[in-house]
Amino acid sequence: MNSPPLEQLAGRVREAARVLARAPGSVRDDALGLAADLLEDERASLVTANRADLERAEAAGMVEAARDRLRLTEDRVHAMADGLRKVAALPDPVGEVTEGWVRPNGLKVTRVRVPLGVVGVIYENRPNVTSDAAGLCLKAGNAAFLRGSSSALDSNRAVVALLRRAVVKAGLPEDAVALVEDTSHETAVAFMQLRGLIDCLIPRGGPALIGSLVEHATVPYVLDGDGNCHIYVDGAADLSMAHELAVNAKTHRFGVCNAVETILVHAGVAPEFLPRLAASLETAGVEIRADERARHHLPDAVPACEEDFATEFLAPIVAIGIVDDAADAMEHIARYSSGHSEAIVTSDVSVAERFVTEVDAAAVLVNASTRFVDGEELGLGAEVGISTQKLHARGPMGVKELTTLKWVVRGEGQVRR
Amino acid sequence: MNSPPLEQLAGRVREAARVLARAPGSVRDDALGLAADLLEDERASLVTANRADLERAEAAGMVEAARDRLRLTEDRVHAMADGLRKVAALPDPVGEVTEGWVRPNGLKVTRVRVPLGVVGVIYENRPNVTSDAAGLCLKAGNAAFLRGSSSALDSNRAVVALLRRAVVKAGLPEDAVALVEDTSHETAVAFMQLRGLIDCLIPRGGPALIGSLVEHATVPYVLDGDGNCHIYVDGAADLSMAHELAVNAKTHRFGVCNAVETILVHAGVAPEFLPRLAASLETAGVEIRADERARHHLPDAVPACEEDFATEFLAPIVAIGIVDDAADAMEHIARYSSGHSEAIVTSDVSVAERFVTEVDAAAVLVNASTRFVDGEELGLGAEVGISTQKLHARGPMGVKELTTLKWVVRGEGQVRR
Repeated sequence: MNSPPLEQLAGRVREAARVLARAPGSVRDDALGLAADLLEDERASLVTANRADLERAEAAGMVEAARDRLRLTEDRVHAMADGLRKVAALPDPVGEVTEGWVRPNGLKVTRVRVPLGVVGVIYENRPNVTSDAAGLCLKAGNAAFLRGSSSALDSNRAVVALLRRAVVKAGLPEDAVALVEDTSHETAVAFMQLRGLIDCLIPRGGPALIGSLVEHATVPYVLDGDGNCHIYVDGAADLSMAHELAVNAKTHRFGVCNAVETILVHAGVAPEFLPRLAASLETAGVEIRADERARHHLPDAVPACEEDFATEFLAPIVAIGIVDDAADAMEHIARYSSGHSEAIVTSDVSVAERFVTEVDAAAVLVNASTRFVDGEELGLGAEVGISTQKLHARGPMGVKELTTLKWVVRGEGQVRR
Repeated sequence: MNSPPLEQLAGRVREAARVLARAPGSVRDDALGLAADLLEDERASLVTANRADLERAEAAGMVEAARDRLRLTEDRVHAMADGLRKVAALPDPVGEVTEGWVRPNGLKVTRVRVPLGVVGVIYENRPNVTSDAAGLCLKAGNAAFLRGSSSALDSNRAVVALLRRAVVKAGLPEDAVALVEDTSHETAVAFMQLRGLIDCLIPRGGPALIGSLVEHATVPYVLDGDGNCHIYVDGAADLSMAHELAVNAKTHRFGVCNAVETILVHAGVAPEFLPRLAASLETAGVEIRADERARHHLPDAVPACEEDFATEFLAPIVAIGIVDDAADAMEHIARYSSGHSEAIVTSDVSVAERFVTEVDAAAVLVNASTRFVDGEELGLGAEVGISTQKLHARGPMGVKELTTLKWVVRGEGQVRR
């Protein structure tokens, strides 16, 4: 199948978005339900399409961890279908009146939540992102314009073909979901520059993708950024709570953006706290890199260098530092934080409130694990990503973050004097 | 005075923003009040500083309209001071809890409005923008990092020096307001690329500035875009209301983004409506460019070309077209609109609601003049600009749009299982 030139395809997706924007929520939900059914019915053919990708990947020498991300199994297809059904069951974000008032001249002013239009998603080799991202876009009334990686092209084509069948079956235009099949770097850059045709671009991938986007994109985008997250154990902390929180935040999962990478400990509690903490972390297989002060209590730890405090390890490694007080901890956090999630453990309410006010991050937690900073865990139902930028969306993004607001003004002939 | 290198200045502004973020609203309001007083006390020296700019401008052959924008008079300085006092009197946007809930595990989740941090403003030669922009930034708890044009450098230096005195007098760091004194193009580009140091960049200027920003900026920005606005007179319109609205929307002020540039008229009412409308517009000095169908009723009108419907005239010129119905009008609007403000005049509620739902613009108005799409007129108190982008802020932006949200999560030791 020959794919149309990028601009032409983008124009068709834009037209589809206009139709979608006026489709009732029930029709969009139907499309998601039909898509879930089709994915399950056709799971065998999806696995077959995926096998072609996997064979190419193996021939090209792709490492097993990457091939695992690329792999579709029948179970994984079921999970994709479940994800679509879960998104369909969420409340419709479109049409919400977020605020409104009447002006002295009688004008009735409201702000109404509406779809963004065309949402572009550019991502790497996990084919489940294809249905996840398309599902969230459709739920919020947006057309999904997808650009996956070349390694997953056969899988993505197969998934998108099913999604398009479902969309048409629900009475919506097939270009409500579209895949860019030309996976060259030049086309990726052209995709990032479809100004006026893409309303919002969301990258799902690593630092190379983010860097390319920041350099090249002229369309508006929302970045899913790094998480160099800290937990600060205050002098007034309940130390057994602090122990449990630090271990959970570091060891619950290593490769995620809301895992803790640095543990900062108040000097007053370090002698009691650190040896026990280190024992639990070592049992969990975590390598400790400690600053000079912390090494007084952790003689076996690797010495931490400046770089360790600036690194998102995404691995069973943790940096540990001793600070004099909460102010010192906040200075450290201001210097090294990526603005994702920052936690304090304390029973002193004034220290807690100061931390909450002064720490500049998407999420600030008191006496809770950073692992909760996630759309599902915070109660958004589904997650598009976690933004570390400050404009438009900050922190976990739900379907609401795939919408915008429209001012609606109703009058009876008012003119401006 | 030698100004520090850009990155060094940006670092200082960033530090000041951290202090500002925790300053109470009363202190920020004090700073605005003190700044207003200082502007008025020092108005003579501001006018003197401005004279140097005006003399350079005249020597360089700047046209009078541009020199008028550059000019500071004692009255204009009073207006700047009044603007600061008005902004100080607005409710504090910082600290608002926009939503919150308790999770099944007991975690208390809230979203709290907080300052963006450092707001960059890049603008052309109106020195009043210096105090207006700084005032709005400070109100929302942000440091104001300003880059004005070379033609207004003496004026901007003088205004910023007073603002910094006021800020210090209120107990805040002087770098809460800072001016980039190097007005070269290279520094403007470097300013747009201070990623990690500027949290939000707002351009106040024409298409050349916007174009440069879209091309070069790597920091997040909010665009204040063009307004190619339409008013559609439906077949079911009250024609005397439609007449008044169309005349107001076109002639109340010509050079503004919320003025109407195209009037679309339902074929059924065109014979009655158009000749009367044309007479009023001509009396107001407006040149009419009509499409072929409209010229049947307006034989003296200039023939409109395709380009006329795509142009934001910002002048006493209007394009007029005849359409078959509301759907036809919406097609025209979808093709030519810049997504700013679109109005319909109709007494048919189902046509009105369809227009409201389907037209994709920052503001959609029913039976009201597009001239109301403005921060003050819609009730925001003060206006940072009018955004035609969909992310972060759309339509008139008040001080609230100079803030972001922070997730605050309070627990009692919850860990993720």
